[in-house]
Amino acid sequence: MGQLGTLTVVGPGLIGGSIGLAAKQRGVAQRVLGVVRRESSGARAVECGAVDQALTDLADAARQSDLVVVCTPVSQVAQQVLAAAAELPAGAVVTDAGSTKGKIVTQVERDLPEGALFVGSHPMAGDHKSGPESARADLLEGRVVVVTPTPSTNPSALERASDFWTALGARVVQMSPAEHDAAVAVTSHAPHALASVLAASTPAPLLPLTGGGWRDTTRVAAGGPQLWRDILMDNRHEVGDAIDRFTDLLGTLRQALANNNGVLVQQILEQAKERRDALGS
Amino acid sequence: MGQLGTLTVVGPGLIGGSIGLAAKQRGVAQRVLGVVRRESSGARAVECGAVDQALTDLADAARQSDLVVVCTPVSQVAQQVLAAAAELPAGAVVTDAGSTKGKIVTQVERDLPEGALFVGSHPMAGDHKSGPESARADLLEGRVVVVTPTPSTNPSALERASDFWTALGARVVQMSPAEHDAAVAVTSHAPHALASVLAASTPAPLLPLTGGGWRDTTRVAAGGPQLWRDILMDNRHEVGDAIDRFTDLLGTLRQALANNNGVLVQQILEQAKERRDALGS
Repeated sequence: MGQLGTLTVVGPGLIGGSIGLAAKQRGVAQRVLGVVRRESSGARAVECGAVDQALTDLADAARQSDLVVVCTPVSQVAQQVLAAAAELPAGAVVTDAGSTKGKIVTQVERDLPEGALFVGSHPMAGDHKSGPESARADLLEGRVVVVTPTPSTNPSALERASDFWTALGARVVQMSPAEHDAAVAVTSHAPHALASVLAASTPAPLLPLTGGGWRDTTRVAAGGPQLWRDILMDNRHEVGDAIDRFTDLLGTLRQALANNNGVLVQQILEQAKERRDALGS
Repeated sequence: MGQLGTLTVVGPGLIGGSIGLAAKQRGVAQRVLGVVRRESSGARAVECGAVDQALTDLADAARQSDLVVVCTPVSQVAQQVLAAAAELPAGAVVTDAGSTKGKIVTQVERDLPEGALFVGSHPMAGDHKSGPESARADLLEGRVVVVTPTPSTNPSALERASDFWTALGARVVQMSPAEHDAAVAVTSHAPHALASVLAASTPAPLLPLTGGGWRDTTRVAAGGPQLWRDILMDNRHEVGDAIDRFTDLLGTLRQALANNNGVLVQQILEQAKERRDALGS
């Protein structure tokens, strides 16, 4: 990919800020604009070096952009993608970083102006921390970014978005929005729900008796409740199915304990270790 | 507490090795012996500085000891505590570091020689790593160690074991074996089971689509399957009850998703964040 002139990040927080930092460090764009709701957020993003300049006017930023990445909470993504698409110069591309894709892509494609170039994306990186202060130029390095073209996606939009993520150091995987949502329900959304239920169901008086295991297992439960409510609700059918599959195996383990069946308990623990060890710490 | 002459750690792995390192660094004992099954393990423990000398003969080490801490897997603890108790000099104390207490303490008290000094302990510290190479002098610093006296416990054994853990930098909490097992079922054993079920139920082809959330939530599933089978089986009634309470709230969340009840989903996520934030990262 040739160098971009202007990259705009809508919502330069953890993910958006990391995209800005990486784009600048790797020379992927000559200039990075950040679109923020409050000027104070913009000043923080500039101070962290995540963006060169912050604006509160999305349309103004879009008119100057070769590529726009919308990195706001999923409930705002479709509307902001469409607002950017309406103002983009000919040939410029808009994509997003939302954790769900089916609802967003459907909404965008329904109202996308003729000739506007959009493809959905989901960088599989994140943290329980938030804000541009937590952004890191290497957040996406070696991480998977799922891009989710549909039959209506312009091939040039797909190619340019894919090249952009690759230039930031990520590995691009292509799936339909529905395939994406089913997969991340299992690998991200249901695990968040389980960690949250574990944290919420632990009586406060017992917290002093938690150790490293509880801390690790519940870490993501510190994430923003509204943000995650919207993700879980957007993808609620697939998350429900993923929870059901988890509950089935949990029921098997529960029954093995009741039946004093140590062999079966150990089999489940061995399969768990095998899956976990496949990834590293 | 005055300085101990000889401290013996049976099983100088992660926990036992950390106890040895801390005891030496803090001058809690003049000399630390390690009891190992294989001479090669002993050489590793000496090389890591976790113990001054390693022996394969538990009785020989016990005869030289002022305090013995048994840090082996829960299935071996009671037998090794009793083997040490049979050889200890008058006034010396034996304790353990097992993650379950009811079964161990009952077995030990049934066969403890007249006048032998024992109290059960559980240092609430650990890691998915193992072996003396992972040991750290500060592993217990600020951590809770539960000591579990019963009506048969000699008050001097309780006092000396408590002083020992305090001297290593830990906070001592006193509970009955049954109270301990019910509490750690909720804070440690059931979380391990849930993390393992999550790892085991994630299809291998989807592993590339996992991110930091899945990694954190499943980290403890890398722990030893046999070790954890024994812990879960020892405490299976309490772990089963803890899993049931978790499953109840998970069912509530599952139903809220099915009913499109975002308000209830958010309430659960907010309670989870409050509990998790109470502990720090």
